[in-house]
Amino acid sequence: MKTGIEYEDSLRKLNLQVFLFGKKVANVVDDPIIRPSMNAVKLTYELAEKPEYEDLMTVTSHLTGKKINRFTHIHQTTEDLVKKTKMERLLGAKSGCCFQRCVGMDALNALSITTYNIDKKYGSDYNSRFLRYLEYVQEEDLVCDGAMTDPKGDRSLPPHQQADPDLFLRVVEEREDGMVVRGAKAHQTGALNSHEIIVMPTISMGEKDKDYAVSFALPSDAQGITYIYGRQSCDTRKLEKGTIDRGNQCYGGHEALVVFDDVFVPWDRVFLFKEFEFAGELVENFASYHRQSYACKVGVGDVLIGASQVAAEYNGVHKVSHIKDKIIEMNHLNETLFCGSLACACEGSRQPSGTYLVNTLLANVCKQNVTRFPYEIARLAQDIAGGLMVTMPAEDDFNSPDVGHWLRKYYAASSSASVENRMRILRLIENITLGTAAVGYLTESMHGAGSPQAQRIMIARQVNMDEKKKTAKHLCGIVE
Amino acid sequence: MKTGIEYEDSLRKLNLQVFLFGKKVANVVDDPIIRPSMNAVKLTYELAEKPEYEDLMTVTSHLTGKKINRFTHIHQTTEDLVKKTKMERLLGAKSGCCFQRCVGMDALNALSITTYNIDKKYGSDYNSRFLRYLEYVQEEDLVCDGAMTDPKGDRSLPPHQQADPDLFLRVVEEREDGMVVRGAKAHQTGALNSHEIIVMPTISMGEKDKDYAVSFALPSDAQGITYIYGRQSCDTRKLEKGTIDRGNQCYGGHEALVVFDDVFVPWDRVFLFKEFEFAGELVENFASYHRQSYACKVGVGDVLIGASQVAAEYNGVHKVSHIKDKIIEMNHLNETLFCGSLACACEGSRQPSGTYLVNTLLANVCKQNVTRFPYEIARLAQDIAGGLMVTMPAEDDFNSPDVGHWLRKYYAASSSASVENRMRILRLIENITLGTAAVGYLTESMHGAGSPQAQRIMIARQVNMDEKKKTAKHLCGIVE
Amino acid sequence: MKTGIEYEDSLRKLNLQVFLFGKKVANVVDDPIIRPSMNAVKLTYELAEKPEYEDLMTVTSHLTGKKINRFTHIHQTTEDLVKKTKMERLLGAKSGCCFQRCVGMDALNALSITTYNIDKKYGSDYNSRFLRYLEYVQEEDLVCDGAMTDPKGDRSLPPHQQADPDLFLRVVEEREDGMVVRGAKAHQTGALNSHEIIVMPTISMGEKDKDYAVSFALPSDAQGITYIYGRQSCDTRKLEKGTIDRGNQCYGGHEALVVFDDVFVPWDRVFLFKEFEFAGELVENFASYHRQSYACKVGVGDVLIGASQVAAEYNGVHKVSHIKDKIIEMNHLNETLFCGSLACACEGSRQPSGTYLVNTLLANVCKQNVTRFPYEIARLAQDIAGGLMVTMPAEDDFNSPDVGHWLRKYYAASSSASVENRMRILRLIENITLGTAAVGYLTESMHGAGSPQAQRIMIARQVNMDEKKKTAKHLCGIVE
Amino acid sequence: MKTGIEYEDSLRKLNLQVFLFGKKVANVVDDPIIRPSMNAVKLTYELAEKPEYEDLMTVTSHLTGKKINRFTHIHQTTEDLVKKTKMERLLGAKSGCCFQRCVGMDALNALSITTYNIDKKYGSDYNSRFLRYLEYVQEEDLVCDGAMTDPKGDRSLPPHQQADPDLFLRVVEEREDGMVVRGAKAHQTGALNSHEIIVMPTISMGEKDKDYAVSFALPSDAQGITYIYGRQSCDTRKLEKGTIDRGNQCYGGHEALVVFDDVFVPWDRVFLFKEFEFAGELVENFASYHRQSYACKVGVGDVLIGASQVAAEYNGVHKVSHIKDKIIEMNHLNETLFCGSLACACEGSRQPSGTYLVNTLLANVCKQNVTRFPYEIARLAQDIAGGLMVTMPAEDDFNSPDVGHWLRKYYAASSSASVENRMRILRLIENITLGTAAVGYLTESMHGAGSPQAQRIMIARQVNMDEKKKTAKHLCGIVE
Repeated sequence: MKTGIEYEDSLRKLNLQVFLFGKKVANVVDDPIIRPSMNAVKLTYELAEKPEYEDLMTVTSHLTGKKINRFTHIHQTTEDLVKKTKMERLLGAKSGCCFQRCVGMDALNALSITTYNIDKKYGSDYNSRFLRYLEYVQEEDLVCDGAMTDPKGDRSLPPHQQADPDLFLRVVEEREDGMVVRGAKAHQTGALNSHEIIVMPTISMGEKDKDYAVSFALPSDAQGITYIYGRQSCDTRKLEKGTIDRGNQCYGGHEALVVFDDVFVPWDRVFLFKEFEFAGELVENFASYHRQSYACKVGVGDVLIGASQVAAEYNGVHKVSHIKDKIIEMNHLNETLFCGSLACACEGSRQPSGTYLVNTLLANVCKQNVTRFPYEIARLAQDIAGGLMVTMPAEDDFNSPDVGHWLRKYYAASSSASVENRMRILRLIENITLGTAAVGYLTESMHGAGSPQAQRIMIARQVNMDEKKKTAKHLCGIVE
Repeated sequence: MKTGIEYEDSLRKLNLQVFLFGKKVANVVDDPIIRPSMNAVKLTYELAEKPEYEDLMTVTSHLTGKKINRFTHIHQTTEDLVKKTKMERLLGAKSGCCFQRCVGMDALNALSITTYNIDKKYGSDYNSRFLRYLEYVQEEDLVCDGAMTDPKGDRSLPPHQQADPDLFLRVVEEREDGMVVRGAKAHQTGALNSHEIIVMPTISMGEKDKDYAVSFALPSDAQGITYIYGRQSCDTRKLEKGTIDRGNQCYGGHEALVVFDDVFVPWDRVFLFKEFEFAGELVENFASYHRQSYACKVGVGDVLIGASQVAAEYNGVHKVSHIKDKIIEMNHLNETLFCGSLACACEGSRQPSGTYLVNTLLANVCKQNVTRFPYEIARLAQDIAGGLMVTMPAEDDFNSPDVGHWLRKYYAASSSASVENRMRILRLIENITLGTAAVGYLTESMHGAGSPQAQRIMIARQVNMDEKKKTAKHLCGIVE
Repeated sequence: MKTGIEYEDSLRKLNLQVFLFGKKVANVVDDPIIRPSMNAVKLTYELAEKPEYEDLMTVTSHLTGKKINRFTHIHQTTEDLVKKTKMERLLGAKSGCCFQRCVGMDALNALSITTYNIDKKYGSDYNSRFLRYLEYVQEEDLVCDGAMTDPKGDRSLPPHQQADPDLFLRVVEEREDGMVVRGAKAHQTGALNSHEIIVMPTISMGEKDKDYAVSFALPSDAQGITYIYGRQSCDTRKLEKGTIDRGNQCYGGHEALVVFDDVFVPWDRVFLFKEFEFAGELVENFASYHRQSYACKVGVGDVLIGASQVAAEYNGVHKVSHIKDKIIEMNHLNETLFCGSLACACEGSRQPSGTYLVNTLLANVCKQNVTRFPYEIARLAQDIAGGLMVTMPAEDDFNSPDVGHWLRKYYAASSSASVENRMRILRLIENITLGTAAVGYLTESMHGAGSPQAQRIMIARQVNMDEKKKTAKHLCGIVE
Repeated sequence: MKTGIEYEDSLRKLNLQVFLFGKKVANVVDDPIIRPSMNAVKLTYELAEKPEYEDLMTVTSHLTGKKINRFTHIHQTTEDLVKKTKMERLLGAKSGCCFQRCVGMDALNALSITTYNIDKKYGSDYNSRFLRYLEYVQEEDLVCDGAMTDPKGDRSLPPHQQADPDLFLRVVEEREDGMVVRGAKAHQTGALNSHEIIVMPTISMGEKDKDYAVSFALPSDAQGITYIYGRQSCDTRKLEKGTIDRGNQCYGGHEALVVFDDVFVPWDRVFLFKEFEFAGELVENFASYHRQSYACKVGVGDVLIGASQVAAEYNGVHKVSHIKDKIIEMNHLNETLFCGSLACACEGSRQPSGTYLVNTLLANVCKQNVTRFPYEIARLAQDIAGGLMVTMPAEDDFNSPDVGHWLRKYYAASSSASVENRMRILRLIENITLGTAAVGYLTESMHGAGSPQAQRIMIARQVNMDEKKKTAKHLCGIVE
């Protein structure tokens, strides 16, 4: 396994084409806007080095028997799934943001199932290709971007009917040694911190869409791939000198638009090729795994609850009954989210490939709550923080010889806290509820792994309404 | 194990002192008000006889190696805890009400832990006494009432300061062969359908309360015990001829006040005797188990969701988008409750006695949601059912030669349903949201196993706020 | 104006055909099931006699200049509308239930507008007919049932396509002296306590439905009208001797199915006859008035909040912070409902007829909240009340020489309250949240004056989305 | 009355001491960070010039009989109060942010009442002083900052017990011609755009705090006053070239810390001087007026709803049922807020001074909802907007010759919208839910005019619980 430092070094060797604020980024790893997101991924290596987290962060490969980072593992038991949930909460708490590596893990697991199932039907050899690829990922301890979301254009039309046929990623050429693809993947979390990019289709498809039914993996710096960096609320605070106003000192997340401009993929990296009827399965399984993965927000919730408690203590109000009650409510909601992720894990089941898949109904239930509760937790955090969180002057004012003394005088609250520390904790709450981390904690909680309505459709499909109706009729004496 | 019929027969042999509507009940088993609650307990025997439910309903005793009903089992693994959750959901769905037997199971499991722990400290032999008792319960396949809640009088005073010292159950005499107790236990679910009553203290206690720190088991018809039956919304509909208006044809629940008028308890039935410092542990463990047990409401929720879907179909509106969305929401909330019960089970842990205890934080989180979501599910059910549910004439009107034809004419809706069936399904929804079953599905969900505030206090105690604060401070650069 | 006693006497003179539990009711006024609902209507007379309520309960007729009961008034100003809101809250609080008289007031006001508008278009004389009728109602101080809701059969079909053409009320014969109608009106609140029944169509209609586009008024005991009484949760408690268990000692509400079996209506009582294009306007205006009328639930909420506070005091927990907070929340929600009813009143506007109509957008917003908040207020009331509310024995047990003393002993709580009074207040909370009054406070709040979706459709129609879109585009610099 | 241009010119004449990012601001009016907030205040002048808004924006002075801007008016009727609500909604919609001028209006009105009441008690002449001052404000058409919130230090201590006596603003010297004050006011909305600053105490006070019981008005550039500008989420986007990423093209709000460093106040500008027993009244009346003022957020809600609808249309999903339903819900919540502000206005009452004061119970209910619903509206807006809102590259990328074409290609959605316009509307939603305007729409909605708990305390105080208890007891037959 790589150390954190080796991970960082490995990224420096990549030749990524990244655009940010209209300019090509010369040094992606050290760019101050991007760097915090790399730090967060690096944590997934650093914690794996620590004995106290070994049980959660590492596991024995079912392929090689070697110790590997759990992010490259194919889940072999429900215990593996439960540990995944706990690992994600741990990292969310340690980083206070999106650490970006789960999407690749979820893509690998989903492909381990579907490549097997395709082979079963067609006698193809996708699964062995995939397992060779998996072994490479495990051996090199790589970060993979799991790239699913196409731009989608007119949402009411299937891929093949779009005005621009590239609005879903597709095969544009088929060669002896591989295929050429064109299109883009939007909202790609952690794309710039990845060694590999694993592409999957984004919806169920019919025969007419078969050119769009492709899945494959490429090095992130493959010829023809361009990354355009997404901007976030308060992103440029990371360019300011000083450290207080950025809230989170070290960590962040990012998303990017990834453009595939006629990119070549060799056949041994292709895991789905026009078997359109498997697109839906791949999407659903990936989505279910990824909906479980929102246990990470429980970890971010831990940070926000901790910050709120600190802010209350600094304000001297932590023993007031309504404050205590709000902290309880935040914890209650946060643990309810945890229950969802745990429950779909412990109810996981073995698939034909041997991979364990989460319970898909409960995974959708889990994610549906994630589209709601973080917003309420954030609201309560703002309630506890007080208005100062958004009316506080800049760090430069605190350091100003003209006005700094006034800020120190008038922003003194409880004697237990320095004004600077009070400012720091409020800036952290701002960061998670309005700033760069709010993108991950709120909006991504809404839309990541599928928008709320996507989960509702799955819930409707997966509950056994016939059984419920039958029981109800029986109890009230209806005979039909 | 007993069959359902043997269970019913065994109840007939009891000599219970029961009062209902001011009169002593001569035949408890066949009283039309009480009978449905017996039917619900009987289900716990009947399902255990069926092969398809064997895995959930039965288990191998760790004491005797024999096959026993899971309700008499001491959980030996987290898998046992998970199966408990699923068994409770199953029975909630099959009965559409409270089936009353889980409280005894939870009492047995809590005692298995605490008797062991007391012995560890004092070298006493409570645990072996308890295990002999347990073996008896398992061998005879008995229903136990777990009796915890004292009347409590003035809630701001501890037991020994109450104006009437009997407002908490206590030892009033200590003899060579046993002790004599006096007091009462309120809200006793399923008391009249129980062979045994297991008494526990209801709060943490200090030394001055030590006469109140007692736990023991007695036959339900022991000399000096009187039961006063609690009335429920719509209880007398069970006395009416006809079957439609009662909603649930067969099943119900009940609660009773149980008075102990100087009742003698032999020493081999005593499991806690004045070791006051263990009262709190016993209460908390019982409460945690019992908060998990609210998985039963997920089963009742299944019935209510099924009934709502049937009502929508009978009204011809089941394809309307807002109706579909409400059904999804009901399912989502219901499955969120299930997640809580599953999560605290799968995160259970082995206690010194070998018993597996649920995760107490998550058990409290589970129950806290149970104090909210059933009310919202019931509200949505009433939305879907329509106003007819509460304006519909009585069954006698449907059978009336004068007006029955008009009801059949004017209450015809979708051609797929007879008017009678439409009435039946609406009466079932009424039953669960306003009638006898609403007592269990709503009010008992609020207060059973502790009122909401009790869970909030436990949540506050059990989350690791120090860790959360530490993480938050670290992330924003606070050094203290 | 009539006194309460005169009102009761006037009802005795009616010859209503009423069926209850399958039998014809010989004496409607004194039937113990029905009586409490009459008492509630009677309150609308009794309070009008009292000087302290004169300002709210009475008003000067714009027709005759005489002092009349506000329930027979046509609103002449926004102040009238505001007083209507306050009168309804007052009566809700004084009765603790549905007092049934507002539906007729709302029908009169809606007809005052639409009859005028039809005449404007067709040169007909509906308005003068109506005003003569109104004068009669005012002079005699009558209670009118406003009958709108048809049985509706298959909800996906318009009236003329129903399998049974009578599922919406319609004209079946046109004579020189009047018309003959057939059909039924469901869910008729207070029908048996009414002197008059005013029929209106229930939906917008097209030309093919014109036989269904009728509005008229009849004496409630007109030949051919039959009432079939709707049963309510806990209705038969009113038949029990004793007074505690019924919760509300005096008052209740009722609904009935009203069947029109070829009933003759003279032309001077007809206010809409096949002018189908006015059906929608009449429905919408009536609905808007009636959605305002749900201010009555604020009054019932006052009772429930008061009862919860008393219960908390009797339990000795009224100073505990979470109890105080729940009482605040109940008040907050209740007053939010009041704000909605007040706001649509004070934003009312003059119609061509001179009648003041509430703001229809805000009236729908008001009612939409009524479909939610009473459920949450009821949930909080049950939280505060405690489980005893549903496990308490019957009044007969309290009076029993065998067990009464035990109940008095063990249900003693705070020394400030007798056990009987504690029981009384809990039975009142049960009455409003699960019993007869829950029908009005909960289910009728959901469906009365239109189910929630009906309001949502109206809200969608009435907000000015174009203006909002224009403003948004302008602010972000979109030029199209 | 001043025109918008005259207003801007008048600000240029002020000599304000403003610090921003640690530096003194040389030109406050043209500073790109501050400027949008000036634009928003300027709107209050510009709309007053337009005939279509004359009725809402202007009014006749009760002092001079001249036409004045409503922001300088003392409310003479409930109609005035209702128009205030509507003016605030209008301006919220026109600016999409906080327009800052209501706080001065609310201070003037609160002082008009309390100065009168003090005179009544003490025979002083505060009211005539105040009226002279008011006439000056009306004649000059001035913007006043209403400065209430002190830094407050340790929240558990009253002013006179604080470690630093300046943590509440106080009189430090009493001279023949006036007094000298020291302290600070935090969170001062619109301070830099004000001509005048009106200081009030922030809490009820006892005799020992009498030096803190002061109210007065000063020119905003009086000697000794310093402003330290509060930073907001995304504030520096206003420094970027380009216009898309700032979301709102023109308008914003601001808050500042205002330091009073031994500032002299002449007696004719002093409106409260140590009459400590009137501090509470002044605070409560100001708070009630200001809680009504949150009608402005309804206007911002209009913008957010409009933007969400536009985004849905650009995405081609505006006819999808769940999208329509979410728009309805946003409107419903928004109009519920409007109802609260209207209701407390129309229920206003005449005070001894002749001023009309809002109903204080309902004003608190109004504001309490404002601490909740905007968060839910914002959550729904993010749901509708989609994830692109937070993953979209910067405007510079759109203009980049390297990648701009790809953004235009892959972000094309519905043919009805250009990609640029799609970006614009999403940036506006980002602005209101995460960016500079989120400060006003969310956090200020939480804490402005008092944090949620402040309203809850007032609600508890102002409801008539005795009446409610009496009614409840009467209904269930309790006689005490």
